[in-house]
Parts: sequence; structure tokens; C-alpha cells
Amino acid sequence: MSREATINTKTVAKNALLEAGMRVMIEKGYSNTGIQEVLDATNVPKGSFYYYFDSKEDFALQIIDYFDRAGEEFMSKFLDNKNVSPLERLKLYCQEKKKMLESDHCRKGCLIGNLSQEMSDQSEVLRARLEEVLTKYRNRLARCIKEGQEKGEINSALDHIQLAEFFQSGMHGAVMRAKTTKTSAPLQSFFDIIFGQILKA
Amino acid sequence: MSREATINTKTVAKNALLEAGMRVMIEKGYSNTGIQEVLDATNVPKGSFYYYFDSKEDFALQIIDYFDRAGEEFMSKFLDNKNVSPLERLKLYCQEKKKMLESDHCRKGCLIGNLSQEMSDQSEVLRARLEEVLTKYRNRLARCIKEGQEKGEINSALDHIQLAEFFQSGMHGAVMRAKTTKTSAPLQSFFDIIFGQILKA
Repeated sequence: MSREATINTKTVAKNALLEAGMRVMIEKGYSNTGIQEVLDATNVPKGSFYYYFDSKEDFALQIIDYFDRAGEEFMSKFLDNKNVSPLERLKLYCQEKKKMLESDHCRKGCLIGNLSQEMSDQSEVLRARLEEVLTKYRNRLARCIKEGQEKGEINSALDHIQLAEFFQSGMHGAVMRAKTTKTSAPLQSFFDIIFGQILKA
Repeated sequence: MSREATINTKTVAKNALLEAGMRVMIEKGYSNTGIQEVLDATNVPKGSFYYYFDSKEDFALQIIDYFDRAGEEFMSKFLDNKNVSPLERLKLYCQEKKKMLESDHCRKGCLIGNLSQEMSDQSEVLRARLEEVLTKYRNRLARCIKEGQEKGEINSALDHIQLAEFFQSGMHGAVMRAKTTKTSAPLQSFFDIIFGQILKA
């Protein structure tokens, strides 16, 4: 095999492990995710896991990065869409989140939220990375909220960062509750209040 | 030993296991809690765990009940205190929650919230029990909110159950975020908005 083909095979194998790991970890959490289970879900030869990852913690860190690339794209698609107003962007973003949760039958939720809850006290390395990602997402939401405030369509009485923080953590709480009730009603109820009472100009 | 003394010893041993189990599980989660670790933290003879509990799942169920007894008492102390107005009761309840989180250095959080996040997709038995407890707590909050609405000190534009749902899940989300930032600021920020913008009559 040429050097390029080898690099390509390695990238494919690594991505397969990240994809499978992400799928298992989002549903079962970090502690409950077995490396063997992840390997079984891929065609990657057993025993090669530690060729790609230093440890399970390193695997989780790289899963977070892998998830984050898709997360960034997802946020960009909705929050940077200049064809619609900032408030409308936020609404469409929320509708899509709800649709995704429903298509998962209110299972799984958000990888970043789940790992934050589970791992913030267990691994300083994961906590720090999760905080970084959450802050980045919050800042994206804040930017959109600020644009809406400048256009006069979002309540300007509150700081855009504080609003975004509230929006983000409220959504995580509502997703958590939706997972427990196995209905998306808590998410809808959250949207009704956040748009009807808080963001409303 | 008399029959009574035996029963008493058994109750003490069982409660010691529940107390130790609760302490470990609130910080480490269900999957990451080892029975051996719990036994090591008590003076209960090894091997007697399955005398008291059918399984780890049954242990968690009984830990939830054990936590719930204290949770009920805690809510009652604040939300049924007729010496202060309903809105003031909610504020004192929130202040106490924040104080507790701070005294834990923003670790642990809420056992019910943590297990909901971690176990709702993993155990139908735990999910159903967690939902029951969360709904009960929400209804307690709702009752206090309704009283405040009747007194005219809480916004009546929204249904008391919906407000309580928002309050509860928003608080869980804020605690989750506080665990990740290791500061209580997200909780304070949540209180500022919920009292300043949403509950305000």
C-alpha cells in the first residue's frame, strides 16, 4: 500500500471509531461505554484502539472534537443564515433541535450536556474541554441574540451573554426532562416561555 | 441478640449502605459507582449487600427513595413556610440551593437530575421512578407558584404548572452548567432572570 493509501486507511479507521464511540457515548455515557463494544461496531481490528487513542479519556476528548465539528456546522447553518432575522434563526434552530430529539424518541440528548453532567467531577481534562465548547456555543447564541437586540426584535433589557447563558442551560435542562418524560413537551414548553416571555422585545 | 435488636442492627446497616451509596452515586453517577467502594465506606460486612438489595438497580431505587425523604423535608421546610410570602419562599429555597452547591464546591449537583440524565435511556425502572419524583417536586413548586399568583405577587399570565416545569428544568440546567464552570454564577444568573423576568407579577 502506498503511504497515502495507508494514511487514508488510518483516517477511515479512526473516524469509524470516533463515529461509533460517539453513538454509544451519547446514549450510555462515558463510564458505561465499553471500548470492546465500540470496536465491535466497526470493522477496525481489535487491539488497534490504543494505536489511535492514548486512553479512554483521550478517546472521549477526540469524540468531543469530532462532535464539535458537526456541532459548529449545525449552529452555523442556523445562526449565520442571513436570509432570516436573528430571532427567526433562533426559532428555526430550536425547532430543529426538537425535531432531532423526537426522531431519537427523546433518547440520547446532547453529548456535550450529558458528558458535562457525568464527567465534570470525574475528569478535570474533560471538564475543561467541555466548558470550552459550551462557552463557544453560548457565544454563538449570544452573537445572534445581540444582532436581534440591535434590530430591536429581541429584549434589550438584559445582557446578550446572560440571555444566551440562560437559553443554553435552560435548553439542556429541558432536554434532560424530555429524556425522563420521553416526550418533547418540556422542550416545547421551554421554547414557549423563552420566546414568549424572555427574548420578546 | 433480641429480635428487636437484630431488626435495629439491620436497619442501621441498610441505612449506612444507602447513605454511603447516595454520597458516591451523587458524585460519580450510577455506572461509575462500585458496590465494593460503598461497602468499604461502611462497617457493613462484605457479602451482605445482596441481603439488603436485589441488585444494583434495586439499590439505586432505594437510594432515590432515601434521597427523596430528605428532599421532601427540604422542600417542605421552604415551600410550606407560611411565615413568609410564596414568592419569598421560592427565593429562600433558591438561595439555600445555591449555598449547598457552593459548600460542595460546585460538585455533585442533584442526585435526581444526575440520574435522570444518565439513566433515563438505560433503565426503564429507574426512569419511571425518577419521573415520578421530578413530577412530585414540580407539583410542590407549582403549588407555591399558584399561591403567589393568587396573592398577586407572581405573574398570572402563565399556567402555574408550566412555570414550575420551567423553573425546575431551568434550575437543573443551571446546576449542570455550574458543575462545568465550577462556579455558582450560572445559578445566580438563572435566579436573576427567573425572578426578575418570569415570575415577576
